[in-house]
Amino acid sequence: MGGLFSKQYHLHRHPVGRSDNHVSVKSGGDFTPTKREIAAFEAGIKLGALYHQFVGSPVGMRTASSLEKAIEESISLQPYVRRVEVRIDRDMLSENVFGYGELEGRMIWALVEIEYEGEVISARLEYDRERSYPLMSLK
Amino acid sequence: MGGLFSKQYHLHRHPVGRSDNHVSVKSGGDFTPTKREIAAFEAGIKLGALYHQFVGSPVGMRTASSLEKAIEESISLQPYVRRVEVRIDRDMLSENVFGYGELEGRMIWALVEIEYEGEVISARLEYDRERSYPLMSLK
Amino acid sequence: MGGLFSKQYHLHRHPVGRSDNHVSVKSGGDFTPTKREIAAFEAGIKLGALYHQFVGSPVGMRTASSLEKAIEESISLQPYVRRVEVRIDRDMLSENVFGYGELEGRMIWALVEIEYEGEVISARLEYDRERSYPLMSLK
Amino acid sequence: MGGLFSKQYHLHRHPVGRSDNHVSVKSGGDFTPTKREIAAFEAGIKLGALYHQFVGSPVGMRTASSLEKAIEESISLQPYVRRVEVRIDRDMLSENVFGYGELEGRMIWALVEIEYEGEVISARLEYDRERSYPLMSLK
Repeated sequence: MGGLFSKQYHLHRHPVGRSDNHVSVKSGGDFTPTKREIAAFEAGIKLGALYHQFVGSPVGMRTASSLEKAIEESISLQPYVRRVEVRIDRDMLSENVFGYGELEGRMIWALVEIEYEGEVISARLEYDRERSYPLMSLK
Repeated sequence: MGGLFSKQYHLHRHPVGRSDNHVSVKSGGDFTPTKREIAAFEAGIKLGALYHQFVGSPVGMRTASSLEKAIEESISLQPYVRRVEVRIDRDMLSENVFGYGELEGRMIWALVEIEYEGEVISARLEYDRERSYPLMSLK
Repeated sequence: MGGLFSKQYHLHRHPVGRSDNHVSVKSGGDFTPTKREIAAFEAGIKLGALYHQFVGSPVGMRTASSLEKAIEESISLQPYVRRVEVRIDRDMLSENVFGYGELEGRMIWALVEIEYEGEVISARLEYDRERSYPLMSLK
Repeated sequence: MGGLFSKQYHLHRHPVGRSDNHVSVKSGGDFTPTKREIAAFEAGIKLGALYHQFVGSPVGMRTASSLEKAIEESISLQPYVRRVEVRIDRDMLSENVFGYGELEGRMIWALVEIEYEGEVISARLEYDRERSYPLMSLK
C-alpha cells in the first residue's frame, strides 16, 4: 500500500499480541477457510448490510410491506444468497407526532440463507428481548 | 410469528428445494456452528455494516482521515472485534464541481479481526481491480 | 447545553465573522422565516434524506422498481410531503461481476412537492451531466 | 423522460389537484425561488443528509467525539456550508448487553449555517422532548 494510507488504528483491549496470533490459531500456516466458514462470512455480510443500509428509513403501517420487499429484493442480489426474508414488526412501529416512525434494528426479523459451493448456512436477525439486543446468529 | 408478519419472499434461482436442504447438509440434524464459523459470521457482519453505514458520506482529501477514524472507532464497538483498520484510497477521491466527493465502496480498504472464544478470524474489504468489485474475503 | 457537549467545530473558509452575521442579514432582529422558506427547507430535508438513506443499496434491473416504490413510500411519510416520485435510471445500472450494482446518487431522479400552510414548493434531484453532479434544486 | 422511467407514485392525501397548484401559488408563472429560499433548501439538504447517513452507526462514550467530528467534517464539504456543529447527547447514549449503542436521531443536536449569495440561513436539528421528535427547524 505504501504511502497511500496514512494511519493505523489498533484496539488494545486484548492482552494477546495480535502479530503472533494467526500462527497460533492453526499450526503450519494453513489459514484456508472452509466452505462453511466462507458461507457463514457471507451470511454475516448480508445481515450487516441490510441492517445498516435501511435502519433509519421512515416507516409506518402503510409502508412497511414495501420496505420489507425492497430490502429482500436488494439483499437477494448479493452473492451466494439463495433466500432472504425480512419482516418488520408492526407491533413495534411507533407513530411520532407526525404519524410515522423510523426503522430500528429491534423491529427487524430477517433470515438469510447462503449457498456457497454446495454448503448452506442460515443466519437470522432477531430481537432478543431479554437482552434488549437485535441479535444476529447462525441458525 | 403468527399474524405479525404478512408475507414471504423466496428466491427461485436455485433448483434445489430449500425445504430439504438443511437436512441434507449434515446428517443427524446437527447444525451447531463451530467457533470459527461464528467468528467468520461476525467478521462478515462488521464488513457489511461498515460498508453500508458509511458509503455515501461526503468525503475529500481534507476529511478522509476523520472519516477513517470514526469508522474504525464505530466498528470497534461491535462484539468480538479485536482490531479494525480502515483506509480510504486518496487516489480514488474525486472532486465534483463543488470540490468534494462521496465515499464509494471501491475506495475502502478495511481489515477486521474477530476473536470469538479463542478463535481468531481476519477478514478484509479490498477493491478487486480486475473484477471491478469491492471484495470482502476471509484472509 | 452546559457540559453535555464537549467540543466545537467551526469552518474557517469565510472571512466574515459568523457571530455578527445574523444581525447583518436582516435589520431589526426579525429572522422569522417565511412559509415558503420553511417549505423549501422541508423539501431539502426530504431530498437529503432519501439520497443518504438509500445510496449504497444493492440494485439491479429486476429490483429497481421495488426500491423506487419503497423510497417513495418511505419519504411520503415525512411531514408536509404531498407528492414524491423516484426514478432509478435503468441505463445507468451497471452489473458487477456478480450481476448487480449499487444505487448511486447520479442514478436517482426524484421530485418532492411540499405543502406548508398553503405554500407549495417543488424540488428535484437530477443528475447534471455537464457538471457530473447529482444536483438538487428548487423547481 | 420517455421510456426510461416506468411508473409513478402520487400521494392522495390532499384534496387539491396538484396539476393546477403550481400556477395558483404565484400568478404570472414566476416560480424563481429567492436566495433565502434556496439557502433554506440547502440547509434542509444538509440536515437530512447528516441524519440519514449516520443514524444507525455504532457509538459509545469512548467514540462519540470522533463520530461528531467526522459528521461535521463530512457535511462541511457540501455546497454553501459555512458552519456546522454536531453534538451527540452523552446522556442518551445507552449501552446494550455488549457495551455500546447506536446513533439515534433524538441523540443528535446539529446546527448548520448556509451562505448562498450573501444570504445566511441557520437551521437546527434538536430533540423536541415534548413531542418526542427530532425536530429540524430554521432558526
